[in-house]
Formats: sequence, structure tokens, C-alpha cells
Amino acid sequence: MFRNKIPDVVIRRLVTYLRILTDREAGPDDYISSAEIGDLADVNSAQVRKDLALFGEFGKQGVGYPVIGLRDELIEILGADRKMYIAIFGVGELGTALARYLTSRRETTPNYRFVIKGLFDVDKSKVGKEVDGIPIRHIDGLGEVMAASEIKIGVIAVPAWAAQDVANKAISKGIKGFLNFAPVRIKTPPGVRIQNSDVTSDLQELGFYL
Amino acid sequence: MFRNKIPDVVIRRLVTYLRILTDREAGPDDYISSAEIGDLADVNSAQVRKDLALFGEFGKQGVGYPVIGLRDELIEILGADRKMYIAIFGVGELGTALARYLTSRRETTPNYRFVIKGLFDVDKSKVGKEVDGIPIRHIDGLGEVMAASEIKIGVIAVPAWAAQDVANKAISKGIKGFLNFAPVRIKTPPGVRIQNSDVTSDLQELGFYL
Repeated sequence: MFRNKIPDVVIRRLVTYLRILTDREAGPDDYISSAEIGDLADVNSAQVRKDLALFGEFGKQGVGYPVIGLRDELIEILGADRKMYIAIFGVGELGTALARYLTSRRETTPNYRFVIKGLFDVDKSKVGKEVDGIPIRHIDGLGEVMAASEIKIGVIAVPAWAAQDVANKAISKGIKGFLNFAPVRIKTPPGVRIQNSDVTSDLQELGFYL
Repeated sequence: MFRNKIPDVVIRRLVTYLRILTDREAGPDDYISSAEIGDLADVNSAQVRKDLALFGEFGKQGVGYPVIGLRDELIEILGADRKMYIAIFGVGELGTALARYLTSRRETTPNYRFVIKGLFDVDKSKVGKEVDGIPIRHIDGLGEVMAASEIKIGVIAVPAWAAQDVANKAISKGIKGFLNFAPVRIKTPPGVRIQNSDVTSDLQELGFYL
């Protein structure tokens, strides 16, 4: 199946399956059933089998999927073995929390692929300081950092009113994907991808069931 | 359609549609097409029409949906007009950022429904302090706070190793839903709902396309 033909929702589920398989301690002879994956991923087992069948026949009837084999296949499908450089825009509480989280995940997870290559802010009282050893730079220095290491993902942790402007600057320097925590829709040219992470939307979804 | 029969993915999209309609300034005669909603929600227009048709005939052929009418319908479907009390567990950088975010959303958004009723930590150096006027309490005081106001949602912002224990305590006091930011799967009894918000999964999904 061609990479650009896989629906977004399937990619989202594959990421969840990979997470489940990575969390599990497993040896070369350990198998996991579609029912068990589905249970952990909150998806029915037929959907799990259908998603995985898109990429080949990994499972064995009545036995399930080899944990390590399937994990490695998912890593390859998702490209999850490629290192990826990140910049965080906005080093307030959220930006700082994200920076520390990513640093600690990298320290505790073998081969953790996301590496912070820059922290950016416009506040002069922050520029020059560090978070976990990573210096905070003025956003005008983004081009220089990009020249030294290819940053693919920008994490937007600025207030809503500043988000579009920050995204525009980052796009003009060549950043192609954003994880946006600002509670606002950001407009982007074709070829640039935005993923929104919005606490209010998460709470709305949860609230529906309560 | 019965409330408990609506698939999770549909609820997720309805939340996105509601957000799009809420973001839009509109008068009583303003309409929006399924194509426009789909474009903003990153969903195709047929899917938008199909999702909304589950709940009745809101749209007019060739004109679209009345912005205010559809928004009000979605608020009703999602129960998004009910106030909902929240507790945040873990008042580190992430918990503090979330508390400030929710407080500021409530100040800037009319009828913002999510109200923080408690901040909890176990760190004695934090207990007794405040974030935006909300006191930080020891988690052992949760029962007392719950007796005074029904907290429905617990936001888990503690380290991974503490998450299950915190969830167990909160469940024992009657909290029925969690938004979990700890990078770990939490086990819950039937009837308790967990929504995971995981930065690494968001980055994995984004990384697939870059």
C-alpha cells in the first residue's frame, strides 16, 4: 500500500499499536492476539486485523502476531527508526514542560528518535538561559540553527495570538510539520502539516461520556 | 441515535466541528458548507455530511448548515453546555501549565465549561501554595474536596511511575474519567474512562508524513 494512501486514522492506530508493543517486554517466541492489542488500543479486534493486513500477513491463525516481529514492521512502516529534530517555540511553562519531558524520554527510552535542537522565544529575559542544558535562543536565530541541523518539526507552545506569526516564520525557514498546542487553527501552505493538540477538545470528548 | 452507540471517532470529529463553528463569528443568516467544515477539520465533505446526518437533517441542499443552529445542536449532542469540575493531579511544570491554561481559557471564553476545583500533589513544598489563586492540596484531601463539589475529570500530570497509584486513589473517591498525560497505560475498572494525551504519539504520527 502506498504511503500517501494510508488514511490518517489508520496511522493514528498504528502508532498506538506500536506503543503497545514497545511497552511490552517480549522475547522472540512471544505472540500477541489481535483481541489483546484491540483491548489495549480501545479498538475491536477485527479492526486491528484489518489495519495490519494492509501491510502484509503478519499474524498466524490462532496464535496471533509475533511481538518483536510486528513491532519491527511497524517501526519500518512508520519510519519510527529515523532520528527527527525538533524546535520548540515558546519557552513558557508549557514549552519548558515539553522540553523536559522530551529530554527525559530520550534519556529513558532506547533509540528515542525525537531530539530537541532548539528552544526559541522572543522574551529577552529568557533568551540566553537554558532548559536541561539546551539554550533558549531568540526566534530570529532559527535560520542559523536550521542551517546546522535539519529541523523537521516545530512545536508551537506560544499564546494563541502569536501562533500564526511563529508558524509563518518557521515555515519560511523550512519547517514542514507542526505540533500545535495553541488553542487556535493555524493556516499553512500545501505540503506543510499541522497536528493540533488541544486540551479543551480532549476534555470535550471525555466529557461526552461522563 | 443512542448516545452509547456513537463511535468514538465520530465523537472526536463532532468535537472538532464544534470547535470550528465556535471559532467562527456568525450571524443568524450565516451558513457553512460541509466542504468548508471538512477542509478545516481535515475530513472529506461526505464524511462531515454522514456524521451530522446521524443526528437529523440540519443542512440545506446547496446552502449548507446554519452556523449558529448547527453549533447549538452540537453543544446539545455533546452535552457541552454542562459545567464540569476537574482536578489536576501533579502540580509540576505540566500541571501548572495546564492549570494556567484552563484558568485563562475560562476567563477569555464565554460559558467555558471546565472548572478546576482542585490541584493535588504529594510534595510538601508545594502543598499550601497556589496557582492562579487555586490552592494546592495534598492528595489525601481529595475526598473532602469531592464531598463539596462533584469532580468528574481527573487530569493526570504526574510522572509515569506514579500515574496508576494516583488514578487508583482518584477512582476510589469517585472520579469517573481521566485525561492522562503520563506516558503509560493506566488500568481502570469498567465504567471508568481514560483518554490518553501523549506527545510522543502525536510526534510519531506527524513524523510519518515528514
